[in-house]
Amino acid sequence: MTSIGILGFDGRMGQAIDAAAKAAGVGVAGGVDKGDPSLPELAGLADVLIDFTAPDALPGHLDAAAAAGTPIVIGTTGLSPDHHTLIDEAARSIAIVQTYNTSLGVNMLRGLVEEAARRLGPDWDIEIVEMHHRQKVDAPSGTALLLGAAANIGRGSADGQGLNRLDRMEGGAREEGGIYYASLRGGSVAGDHQVVFATDGERIELGHRAENRGIFARGALKAALWLAEGRAPGRYTMVDVLGL
Amino acid sequence: MTSIGILGFDGRMGQAIDAAAKAAGVGVAGGVDKGDPSLPELAGLADVLIDFTAPDALPGHLDAAAAAGTPIVIGTTGLSPDHHTLIDEAARSIAIVQTYNTSLGVNMLRGLVEEAARRLGPDWDIEIVEMHHRQKVDAPSGTALLLGAAANIGRGSADGQGLNRLDRMEGGAREEGGIYYASLRGGSVAGDHQVVFATDGERIELGHRAENRGIFARGALKAALWLAEGRAPGRYTMVDVLGL
Amino acid sequence: MTSIGILGFDGRMGQAIDAAAKAAGVGVAGGVDKGDPSLPELAGLADVLIDFTAPDALPGHLDAAAAAGTPIVIGTTGLSPDHHTLIDEAARSIAIVQTYNTSLGVNMLRGLVEEAARRLGPDWDIEIVEMHHRQKVDAPSGTALLLGAAANIGRGSADGQGLNRLDRMEGGAREEGGIYYASLRGGSVAGDHQVVFATDGERIELGHRAENRGIFARGALKAALWLAEGRAPGRYTMVDVLGL
Amino acid sequence: MTSIGILGFDGRMGQAIDAAAKAAGVGVAGGVDKGDPSLPELAGLADVLIDFTAPDALPGHLDAAAAAGTPIVIGTTGLSPDHHTLIDEAARSIAIVQTYNTSLGVNMLRGLVEEAARRLGPDWDIEIVEMHHRQKVDAPSGTALLLGAAANIGRGSADGQGLNRLDRMEGGAREEGGIYYASLRGGSVAGDHQVVFATDGERIELGHRAENRGIFARGALKAALWLAEGRAPGRYTMVDVLGL
Repeated sequence: MTSIGILGFDGRMGQAIDAAAKAAGVGVAGGVDKGDPSLPELAGLADVLIDFTAPDALPGHLDAAAAAGTPIVIGTTGLSPDHHTLIDEAARSIAIVQTYNTSLGVNMLRGLVEEAARRLGPDWDIEIVEMHHRQKVDAPSGTALLLGAAANIGRGSADGQGLNRLDRMEGGAREEGGIYYASLRGGSVAGDHQVVFATDGERIELGHRAENRGIFARGALKAALWLAEGRAPGRYTMVDVLGL
Repeated sequence: MTSIGILGFDGRMGQAIDAAAKAAGVGVAGGVDKGDPSLPELAGLADVLIDFTAPDALPGHLDAAAAAGTPIVIGTTGLSPDHHTLIDEAARSIAIVQTYNTSLGVNMLRGLVEEAARRLGPDWDIEIVEMHHRQKVDAPSGTALLLGAAANIGRGSADGQGLNRLDRMEGGAREEGGIYYASLRGGSVAGDHQVVFATDGERIELGHRAENRGIFARGALKAALWLAEGRAPGRYTMVDVLGL
Repeated sequence: MTSIGILGFDGRMGQAIDAAAKAAGVGVAGGVDKGDPSLPELAGLADVLIDFTAPDALPGHLDAAAAAGTPIVIGTTGLSPDHHTLIDEAARSIAIVQTYNTSLGVNMLRGLVEEAARRLGPDWDIEIVEMHHRQKVDAPSGTALLLGAAANIGRGSADGQGLNRLDRMEGGAREEGGIYYASLRGGSVAGDHQVVFATDGERIELGHRAENRGIFARGALKAALWLAEGRAPGRYTMVDVLGL
Repeated sequence: MTSIGILGFDGRMGQAIDAAAKAAGVGVAGGVDKGDPSLPELAGLADVLIDFTAPDALPGHLDAAAAAGTPIVIGTTGLSPDHHTLIDEAARSIAIVQTYNTSLGVNMLRGLVEEAARRLGPDWDIEIVEMHHRQKVDAPSGTALLLGAAANIGRGSADGQGLNRLDRMEGGAREEGGIYYASLRGGSVAGDHQVVFATDGERIELGHRAENRGIFARGALKAALWLAEGRAPGRYTMVDVLGL
């Protein structure tokens, strides 16, 4: 039986992953939180690690994984370019899945948005709106940015960069080719996203609704099991895991 | 037969009102645009005036209406406190309907939002999202602000003022009791609005969709015919016209 | 401390109510399932009973509650006129809350739908659409029917009866004054409802989304605590409990 | 300048196509309605014909087009297998575009639905819901069926046939692999469609909104101009016209 090691065990995602593993009959070798000295031991015991923590914990987690030769799923958000460089380095010796959203639905939607943006001309304006629970402090969500990057890639951007606009409420004309974001916060919403393509007389709306954090935990588990099948060292995404 | 005078005849709303009048068998005494010297004559001929123009044209329009003793429907948006003072003064001698949205649906929704905000406690967060065509330059829409004012009144504000927040995209925690706005722009959308009440585990969504400008023209005509029935001098809203 | 007795303890709602009681610091005197001989004992111990079971268990539950003089919340669905007669009889000696939906949001929405139907004329068509998880076998949902009854009451029906239509897919013209229902089933959706009022050129959409069963459990608990405050014998609804 | 001949000139779509042609600077050679003896003459004059009429008029229209060697766009709905055989025969000598929906948005959505159905497993339930104006008598809409066929093709059906289910309101368990339809009718809605993919914990929603008939007229015109560029005899769809 495959066994996983959970980094950030006491966090909301850590607990959800632990529950998902139990429900799926996947072994849990153990879990650690910030500063736990048993991290190297866990990295050696587990077949694969799953990390939903904070960016500043990432270097230590990558070191432990690489030292033990254990693959790792990274779901931590808010990573800087420096963090990505560290991931690239570790990926020379171990297999790594790094992603901002582990759900099948969002990753499926990502591909559809890229496809629609590729085929629809510049006279189709793109707007992205999302809603999350009242405690979420960043806006727009990482997933909204992921979907916007997919639209930019569809429109020809190599790296997903483009005319991302967060300043709608200052008023003024819509910038042609701009991708605008809108964020709603309230209650306990797990995460709703919608990408709107609008032109003269018609709209296409492509959306996703998450009911709870369980789908993200199950997605992380799926990525872990995929890595545990024995992947060559390198960096992977959910698109690889899901075969999209 | 009642006959109307259209101020801003060549504008999009002026044309829509002209078409709505013809479809409804209402007479059109004539129409003027900015600087037309026949304004006083039209004010004397028409039973009621309808004004969808710009704020700076309002003083002249009010003078002409008051001089002729002709009631007037004001649908012009972007009015300042000074404009409202002028309307109050003119309303001593003539009957005036002033409104930011003439549709039955939006005015009905307005009442429902006020009612919901009155009865739901402070643990129900309120978010307002709207979408309009790509040419619209102001955000949020006047109608979104009208709905937000209704929510504030429901929560106990006498004048509709409250914690209106347009700065979501700067991030940070949701302010308790705040009403947040989000605006989308694209294509040719005539106007969609939704007020979301969200609490732990559930959401109420109250929305309105306009298919085209015709409903606003028909609403303005309805207000004009209501005035032409013979109202006492004073200031009225669509709530009076529609008997809501 | 108020203590509740849970009828249908092992059911999905029974378990959710047990969890909600623990989270809220409400005592649980015990729980019984079909045929448990300790029902009379539990009815005597608990301050109030909560019943989410099946219609055929209702007579026994009412007898036990009446014999012990203990108030009861009935959330069981699919009741026949005979069941309602039994409830009326029991309500001569004990206080009873009977409802098809215990959430604050749905009961709030119910009032808004009645109000909108009252004020909007017959040229506003009413359609009700709902989505639930794939296991739900009845269609439309009890809550959709509750919302339709509210619309009929708003339109002047004394008892909520009206031109309810479930036969849209056979084709043919829309019947004026009819209220049509549409049901979607899939995944694990806890319950989404939307009432659409549509006329020429515009739509009003009034909806509710439940994220999980917890809101229904908390609503049932709220009804129980309201009864336990000491109500006179009689029959009550969530409208009374929530003060709507 | 390309000139079109409009079959069903006095119909709602005929008038919309005439207006769209004028707006786009496309010539209109003329238009005929049912039983007009000048049909053969028009077929000879026009570069391409556009037919939005009724199924029983189709044989005569195909004869006239084939006799004159003029390509034709067929947007008429409700065709039987016999009609399709006639179209196949005529397509040996002339180029024909046959489609149930000429909008770019719907045809784009069609491809996305097929793609999503291909990649998502059988544990993603598919539901299709649409809303149209109160006069529409058939349900579900042709476009809903077109989207359902796309989903069936994505799931492996060669011809788009599958477990289409229109009988939800009779109640009972959801059939695995079934595609269920729901239809709403009211007001003047030009046409809204949404395909919902729902699984445990999440949903993907792919939708389209048409504001008015103009988009369908412009799509028909686009198909006509594409044919007029000089296509080989044969049968084409909007996927060919739009290069999707």
